[in-house]
Amino acid sequence: MKYIYFFGDNKTEGKKELKELLGGKGANLAEMSNINIPIPPGFTISTIACKHYNQENNKLTDDMISEIQQNITKLEESTQKTFGDSNNPLLLSVRSGAAVSMPGMMDTILNLGLNDNVVKGLANQSNNEQFAWDSYRRFIQMFGNVVMGISHDKFETILEQIKEKKQVTYDMDLTVDALKNLVEQYKQLIKNEANQSFPQDVHKQLIQSIQAVFNSWNNQRAIKYREINDIKGLEGTAVNVQTMVFGNMGKDSATGVCFTRNPATGENSFYGEYLINAQGEDVVAGIRTPLQIKTLQKNMPDLYDQLLKTCKKLEKHYKDMQDLEFTIQNKELYMLQTRTGKRTAQAAINIAVDMVNEGLINKKEALLRIDPKQLSQLLHKQLDKNTKHNNQYLANGLPASPGAAVGKIVFSNESAIEQSKDDESVILVRNETSPEDIIGMEVASGILTAKGGMTSHAAVVARSMGKCCVSGCKEIKINEEKQTITVGSKTFLQGDFITLDGATGNVYDGKIPTVSPKLNGNFSTILEWADKSKKLQVRTNADTPRDAKKAMEFGAEGIGLCRTEHMFFEGNRIKAVRRMILAHDTKKRKEALATLKPYQKEDFINLFKIMNGKPITIRLLDPPLHEFLPKEKEEIKAFAKEMNISHEQLQKEIAQLQEVNPMLGHRGCRIGISHPEIPEMQAQALFEAAKEVAAMGIKVQPEIMIPLVGHVEEFTHQKKIITTVAKQVLNGSKNIDYKIGTMIEVPRAALRADTIAVEAEFFSFGTNDLTQMTSGFSRDDVGKFIPEYISQGLFKFDPFQTLDQTGVGELIKISVKKGKAFRSDLKLGICGEQGGEPKSIEFCHNIGLDYVSCSPYQIPIARLAAAHASLKSLNKIN
Amino acid sequence: MKYIYFFGDNKTEGKKELKELLGGKGANLAEMSNINIPIPPGFTISTIACKHYNQENNKLTDDMISEIQQNITKLEESTQKTFGDSNNPLLLSVRSGAAVSMPGMMDTILNLGLNDNVVKGLANQSNNEQFAWDSYRRFIQMFGNVVMGISHDKFETILEQIKEKKQVTYDMDLTVDALKNLVEQYKQLIKNEANQSFPQDVHKQLIQSIQAVFNSWNNQRAIKYREINDIKGLEGTAVNVQTMVFGNMGKDSATGVCFTRNPATGENSFYGEYLINAQGEDVVAGIRTPLQIKTLQKNMPDLYDQLLKTCKKLEKHYKDMQDLEFTIQNKELYMLQTRTGKRTAQAAINIAVDMVNEGLINKKEALLRIDPKQLSQLLHKQLDKNTKHNNQYLANGLPASPGAAVGKIVFSNESAIEQSKDDESVILVRNETSPEDIIGMEVASGILTAKGGMTSHAAVVARSMGKCCVSGCKEIKINEEKQTITVGSKTFLQGDFITLDGATGNVYDGKIPTVSPKLNGNFSTILEWADKSKKLQVRTNADTPRDAKKAMEFGAEGIGLCRTEHMFFEGNRIKAVRRMILAHDTKKRKEALATLKPYQKEDFINLFKIMNGKPITIRLLDPPLHEFLPKEKEEIKAFAKEMNISHEQLQKEIAQLQEVNPMLGHRGCRIGISHPEIPEMQAQALFEAAKEVAAMGIKVQPEIMIPLVGHVEEFTHQKKIITTVAKQVLNGSKNIDYKIGTMIEVPRAALRADTIAVEAEFFSFGTNDLTQMTSGFSRDDVGKFIPEYISQGLFKFDPFQTLDQTGVGELIKISVKKGKAFRSDLKLGICGEQGGEPKSIEFCHNIGLDYVSCSPYQIPIARLAAAHASLKSLNKIN
Repeated sequence: MKYIYFFGDNKTEGKKELKELLGGKGANLAEMSNINIPIPPGFTISTIACKHYNQENNKLTDDMISEIQQNITKLEESTQKTFGDSNNPLLLSVRSGAAVSMPGMMDTILNLGLNDNVVKGLANQSNNEQFAWDSYRRFIQMFGNVVMGISHDKFETILEQIKEKKQVTYDMDLTVDALKNLVEQYKQLIKNEANQSFPQDVHKQLIQSIQAVFNSWNNQRAIKYREINDIKGLEGTAVNVQTMVFGNMGKDSATGVCFTRNPATGENSFYGEYLINAQGEDVVAGIRTPLQIKTLQKNMPDLYDQLLKTCKKLEKHYKDMQDLEFTIQNKELYMLQTRTGKRTAQAAINIAVDMVNEGLINKKEALLRIDPKQLSQLLHKQLDKNTKHNNQYLANGLPASPGAAVGKIVFSNESAIEQSKDDESVILVRNETSPEDIIGMEVASGILTAKGGMTSHAAVVARSMGKCCVSGCKEIKINEEKQTITVGSKTFLQGDFITLDGATGNVYDGKIPTVSPKLNGNFSTILEWADKSKKLQVRTNADTPRDAKKAMEFGAEGIGLCRTEHMFFEGNRIKAVRRMILAHDTKKRKEALATLKPYQKEDFINLFKIMNGKPITIRLLDPPLHEFLPKEKEEIKAFAKEMNISHEQLQKEIAQLQEVNPMLGHRGCRIGISHPEIPEMQAQALFEAAKEVAAMGIKVQPEIMIPLVGHVEEFTHQKKIITTVAKQVLNGSKNIDYKIGTMIEVPRAALRADTIAVEAEFFSFGTNDLTQMTSGFSRDDVGKFIPEYISQGLFKFDPFQTLDQTGVGELIKISVKKGKAFRSDLKLGICGEQGGEPKSIEFCHNIGLDYVSCSPYQIPIARLAAAHASLKSLNKIN
Repeated sequence: MKYIYFFGDNKTEGKKELKELLGGKGANLAEMSNINIPIPPGFTISTIACKHYNQENNKLTDDMISEIQQNITKLEESTQKTFGDSNNPLLLSVRSGAAVSMPGMMDTILNLGLNDNVVKGLANQSNNEQFAWDSYRRFIQMFGNVVMGISHDKFETILEQIKEKKQVTYDMDLTVDALKNLVEQYKQLIKNEANQSFPQDVHKQLIQSIQAVFNSWNNQRAIKYREINDIKGLEGTAVNVQTMVFGNMGKDSATGVCFTRNPATGENSFYGEYLINAQGEDVVAGIRTPLQIKTLQKNMPDLYDQLLKTCKKLEKHYKDMQDLEFTIQNKELYMLQTRTGKRTAQAAINIAVDMVNEGLINKKEALLRIDPKQLSQLLHKQLDKNTKHNNQYLANGLPASPGAAVGKIVFSNESAIEQSKDDESVILVRNETSPEDIIGMEVASGILTAKGGMTSHAAVVARSMGKCCVSGCKEIKINEEKQTITVGSKTFLQGDFITLDGATGNVYDGKIPTVSPKLNGNFSTILEWADKSKKLQVRTNADTPRDAKKAMEFGAEGIGLCRTEHMFFEGNRIKAVRRMILAHDTKKRKEALATLKPYQKEDFINLFKIMNGKPITIRLLDPPLHEFLPKEKEEIKAFAKEMNISHEQLQKEIAQLQEVNPMLGHRGCRIGISHPEIPEMQAQALFEAAKEVAAMGIKVQPEIMIPLVGHVEEFTHQKKIITTVAKQVLNGSKNIDYKIGTMIEVPRAALRADTIAVEAEFFSFGTNDLTQMTSGFSRDDVGKFIPEYISQGLFKFDPFQTLDQTGVGELIKISVKKGKAFRSDLKLGICGEQGGEPKSIEFCHNIGLDYVSCSPYQIPIARLAAAHASLKSLNKIN
C-alpha cells in the first residue's frame, strides 16, 4: 500500500485528477509542479492513510512512519537541506487538505523542524536572528496549541504582555531578546499546562504534527462544517508536508493571497492582498490589514509580473478563476496553493459568461459553474437609492459581501440564535470571526467585523453564504464585555438597529429602506441559457397582482399557487368575510358572499391580464374560518358593534370556532363541503372573470385547485359544484380551457392517488402541509425541537426548507406512480416552499414533475437549479 | 328473461339457495313449499326485476306486466279463486323481501284485490261482514299510505275520531256501519290529498303496489339502513305476491310470530307471541299487547301441536334457530315466513353451543354463527346487585334487550344526538319507535318504550344493536308535547336521569351503580374454541393494575399498550410531574424525576406480577408536557403557591408551553430527546422492577416502546439511553429478555420502516394517531365535519372506529412489507382503538400481524373476531 506522494522537481507523483486521494491542496501542488510552476517541494500523505490512521485507533503504523522517513530523505536530497540539522536546516509546514475545501476547519503547523539548537543555525544561515527566533516562537505557539492542546489565548496573553512591556505595536518589532524571552515563557507554559516538555526531537515534532492534523479531521467544528455543507463520502484529510518558505525574511519577502479575477464582482482583473515581511497566516487571520495586490507592482515590479503570469497560466490550465497563495522569500516567488476561487453570485455569473465569450468553457459548463443557491445574493435587498440616508452614516469598512442588511445588533452566536428565533433580523457584530461563528452567521442577516480584510474568515464565509458583510470596519469599537459598540460619541446596545451596505462597506445608524434588484445583462444571459437546458417549468406562488408582476419580471411561466384567501384580508373585504363566517343560515352566508364576489372577480381579472395567457392555479379557500376572525379584545368589541350583536355573543361564537389542532381541523375542502356556497361563489367570480378577459382576446388558462383532499369523494363533491357553475357562466361564450385538480397535501391523498387521478386533472404537491402531516411536525411548534435535532446531528436539514426526499418524497413518488398509472397526462407540480430550493428541484426533475412553483424572488434560482438538474441527469445518462 | 318464480302446490320454482334472486322471504317460502310446509301460494318477482325496474326509470316493462298476469292466472288456478271477482275473490298481500333482512324498512300492502264490489262478495263468502269491511278499510289505509303517499297519521286521526264517537277501545269492536263510514271517509281523504280516487281496478291496485314496493328499495330510510348496516352489492328487493290468509276471521283465527328457541336467552324452548282475531301487522306494530305462545296450547291445542312440529321441522332443515310468522284462518295453519332468527349475544352463544352438542352443526360453524360485535352486549354493564335500589323503583316493562343503562331522558332523535355529543349517556324514551328512530337509538345508551312487545320495532332493533331496551312499559305516560313523562305522581323532564334494567324490564328513578359481567359457561366454551381457530394474539391496552386484572379475566395474552403517563396523574405524582416540567435545569428536573421513580417502579412491579410472564409493551412518556399542567385558574394559583413562584410567572410558563397544534408538536420521543433524563428514569424504574420480579421467580417480558418516531435517528437516540440503563441495572443479575421497539404512528415512520426495522425489534401500529396524521383529522376537531360526511354519504364509516383500510391500512401494509424485508422476525401489532373492531381485526389477520391490542372489555370480541378472520381466510383458500 502506497500512502505518500512526492511533489517537486521532476519527482512529482500526483496530479490534479487525484483530488480524492491527495486532497485538493495536495493534488494541485502536484499539478503545479507538473506544469513547472515554482513550488516548494514536499509530499502528500493520502486520505487513505488518514482512513487507516482512524481505523488503527489514531495510530500511525510502522509502514507509514517508514514511508514518511523515506520521503523526508527524498526532500532532503531535493532541497539540499537536512531535517534537524542546525547548519542547513530543512523546515517544514504540515497542512491539512481534504478533497473538498474546508477553510480553517482543520489544523496547520508551520516552521516545523526548529528546536533550541536549530534556531541558532537558522539565525546564522539566514543572517537574521530576529526572523529565526520569531519563526521559532510561532512554531512553539502553533505546536503547543494544535498538537499539545493548549489554548491559543494563553500564548497570546504572554505575547501581549511582552509587547506591552516592550511598548511595541507589531509582533515583528519585538527584539531578539524579547523573542528569546517569549520562547522561554512559551516552553514554560507548555510544561505547566501539558505536564511535558516541548519536544526537541524534530522527528517527534513531525510525527505528532501529522497525527494532530489527522485528528483534526474528526474535531467537532470540522464535523459540524461537513454537516452544514453536506459534505459526505470522504475518507479523511490528506496531510501536506512541505518545505517552508518564508515571507517574513525581511523587506524583500512577502506573502499573499490572490484571485485571478475579482471574486466580488467577477471583473477580469487581478485581485488580491499581501503583507510584506509576514507569514501567510497573518493575511488570513485578519490581524494586520493587508495591502492591495496592485501595490506589489510598485513595490516589487518583477515579482508582480512573474506572479501575474503564473496566475494567468494557472487559470488557463484549470479553466476557472483561481484562488492562490504565494510567498516571496528573498525576492524568490513560490506558489503555495491554487484552487478554484470562491466568488459572489455576481462574480460567478460574470466570470461564467466572460469565460464562454473567451472560449474557455461552453454554455453548459458555464451554467454548472454557478450555484443556484448563491443567486439569492443577487435577489437580496439593496439599499434604496431613492432614500437619503447620509445623516444616518456611521462608518465605512470593507465591502466584503454584497447585499444590504437591516437588523438588531447581537454580539454572540447565542444571542444571534435567540434573537432571530421569531424571524427577527439580526446583525452579528464581532472584532473578527472564527470558524466557531458559522452558527451565528447562519442565522444573521448580516455580519460586521472591526478587524480583518476582504479575505478574512468573515468575508469568505459570508460570501459563500450569500450574506451581506462589512469587514475591517476600524472606526467601530466593540466592548464585548459590556456588550456595546461605540462609533465616535455614539454608543449602541444589543438590540439596537443598524444597517449594512455590502456594496460600499458603509454602516448606518437605524433602519434604512431597501429595494430588490432587477435582472439584467449577464444574469439574464445565464437564465436564458438555463431555460434552454431545463425541462421543469418554473411557476410562481403569487396571490396578488403585485406578486404576479414581480414574478413575470423574474421569468415565471405561470402561477403555480394563488391562495384566494389572501384576497380576503384586504380592506373592507375582511368585514364581509367575517359576516359570512358568523352567518347562521345559508341565506345570510350567501348575502355576505355576494358582497365578496366583485372583489374576487376583479382580482382574477387583474391576474389573468398580468399573466397574459400563462396558466394560473387558483386554490379555493383553504384556512380554517377562525383565522379570519378578530383576535384582539378591542377589535372584537368593534366588530360586535358593527354586527349588532353583544360582545359576549361574538366572543362565544369565536370560541366555538376554535380548534385544538387547526392544522388537522375544519379547513380546505372540508369547509367547501360544509358550506358549498363558498366554492360556488369563488367559481362564479373565477369563470365570470375568465369570460370577460377572454372576450378581450387574452388567453386564459385557469387551473382550479381543491385543497386538502384526502378522499376522492371530497374531490368529486367540490368538482361538481365547479363544473355546474362553469356550465352556467360559460354557457354560449367562447370556450375556455380550464382544469380541475387538487393539492396533494394530506398523506392519504398521496396513498390514494390512483382513485383521485380518476377525477383530478392535475396534482400540485403542497409540501408544506404534506411535511407537517407526514412527519407530524406542526410548523408553528417545531421550533421547540427541530433546531435541537439539527444541532445534535439527528437531522441534517430543516425539512421545511429542503424537501425530505426519503419521507415526504416517498409519498410524492407513490402519488406520481399511482396517478400517472391512471392518467398518463396528469399534470404534476410542487408548490410548497421547498419548490425554490435547488436540491428539492433536482428531486422534482428526477421524478418527472412538470413544474415547480416558488416565491417570485426564488424564480431565478429555480430556473438555474432546474437547468442543473437536467444537465446533471444527462451527464449521468451519458 | 324470467322475472317471476311461483311457489305453492307442486308448482314451486324457487328454493332456499336462490336468496340473492328471490330475497330471503321469497326463497324461504319456496323452500317451505318444497318440504311440504303449509303456505298460502303466491309468486316472487325477483330482485333482477327490481334492478331492471330501476334502470327503466321506475317503470314496469310490458314483459314484466304480462309475466305478472300469467302468474295471477296460475294463482287463480291453484286457489280456485278469481282476482277481482266478487263471488270468490282472490285477495293478495304484496311484500318486499331483499336478500338481507331489512326489517320494517320497505313497504307492505295487505288485502289487495278488494274494492266496493268485492268487499260485498267477501262479506257474503266469509259470512262475516265486519271482517270484510275491516279488511277493506285496512287495505285502503295501507294503499293510501304506501302507494299514494298520504300520511299514516291522517288515517289514524279519522279512525280515532270514529272510535271516540262510537266509544270503542279496539278497532275490532267497530260496527259494520262504522267501518263503512270509515271507508267512505278514507276514500274522501285520498281524493282530497292525492287529487285522484282510490282505484277500483284490482289490476291497477296490484301494479301500483308492486311499483310502490320496488320504489321503497330506494327510500331514504332504506338507504340509511343499508349504510348503517354496511349492506352492499344487492340488486334490489324482490316482491312477494301471495294469497291472503286471515287471522282476523273470528275467534278461530289468529296470527303470530314465533321463534324455535328463545331469542333473548337462547333456551331451547318454543317462544313467541300471537293475537287472536288479528292481522299480522297488529302483532309487530305493538299496538295491542300480544299473548305468550304457550297460551295457544290451551286455546287451540291441535293447532299448537301442529305449529310446534312445523317449527321444529324447519329448524332441523335450516340447522339454525328460526323466526317464523304464521296465521291461523278458521282453524287452518299457514306459515307466512321463516328466516334465521335474530338473537341476543347470550342467545347466540347458548344456541351455538347447544347445537354443537345436539350434533346439528360443528364448532367452526358455531363460531361463525356469532357476530363478534354483538358480544359487547354481554360485556355491557349490569345493575350492581349489591346495591339496594328498591326505593328507586318506578315501573316494569318487557325485558326487551339485556344490559343496564343509566342516562338522561331524551324524547327525540335530535335531542338524543345533541345531548350525547359530549359522551353524555342518554335514554331515548318513546311511545313506540319507528324505523326513523334508528338514528336516535344508535347514540342512546338505552331505549324505553311505553307500547310494543318483545318483538316490537324497538325490541328487535335494540337487540341487534346490543343496547339495553325496556319495551311496553305501560305505567309510563309520555307527554311528547310538554316533553315530560309521568309515572304515578312523579314527573320527569328531559335531562333527568333514569336507569333501565334490560334483564328484568325494571325502570328506576335516577342513577344506579352498574357492574361489569364475568365470562363463564358457554361464553367461555365459545372463546376457547375461538382461541383454537385464531392466529392473532389478543393483547390489551392497560395502564393500571386494575385494567390489567380485568384484561387477564377476559383472556388477554399480554399488554399491547401500557401508557406510562397515565401513571403520572394519580395523587401526589402529578405534583412531582409538574415540578419536573417547570424545572429550568437538568439538575432540578432529575430531582423531580427521582421522586417519581419509586411510584413508577411500584406500578411496573404490580403489572409484571399480574401479567405473570406474559409480554408487556410499555410506552415511554408520550403526551406534550402541557397536558400535565393545571388549567383552571384556582388550580394554577394553588400550584404557584406550592412552587413558591408568583401566579403570573407560572401562568407565563404555562403559556410558553402551549402549542398551536399539540398533536404535531413537542411530544413523544421528541421530549425524550430534549430531556433524556425522562426516558432514563423510566428505563431505570422498569428494569429495577423487572429485576426484582424476576428474582421472585416470575418471568418478565418487557417490550419497551419509543413513541412518535419518524426518523430512525430518533429511535437510535432513545434506544441508546435504554440499553445503557439496562446494562447498568441488569448487570450481573438474571438475564431478562427485553425488546425495544416503536409505535408506528407518524406516516413517515411507516414509509421508512425499512430503516427503522434495522434498529427496532417490534412495531406497534398506533392507528389513532396514524389516522389523525394520514388523513389530517384532529380527533378533537373532526366533530365539525365527519358526522356530516357520514350523513352525506361521503364517508361510509368513522375512521376512528373502523380502520381506514385503503388509506391508513395502505401505510400499515407498506410498513409490514418494508419492515419484514429487513427483519423477518419483526413483531407486529396494532394498539389503536380499531384493534377491538372486527373488520379491522380481519384486516390485521390478513396482512399478517402478530397481535391486536384492545381495551379489556373488547378482548372477547377480538378473540372471536380473530377466529372469524382465520376461518374466513381458510374458507377462501379452500
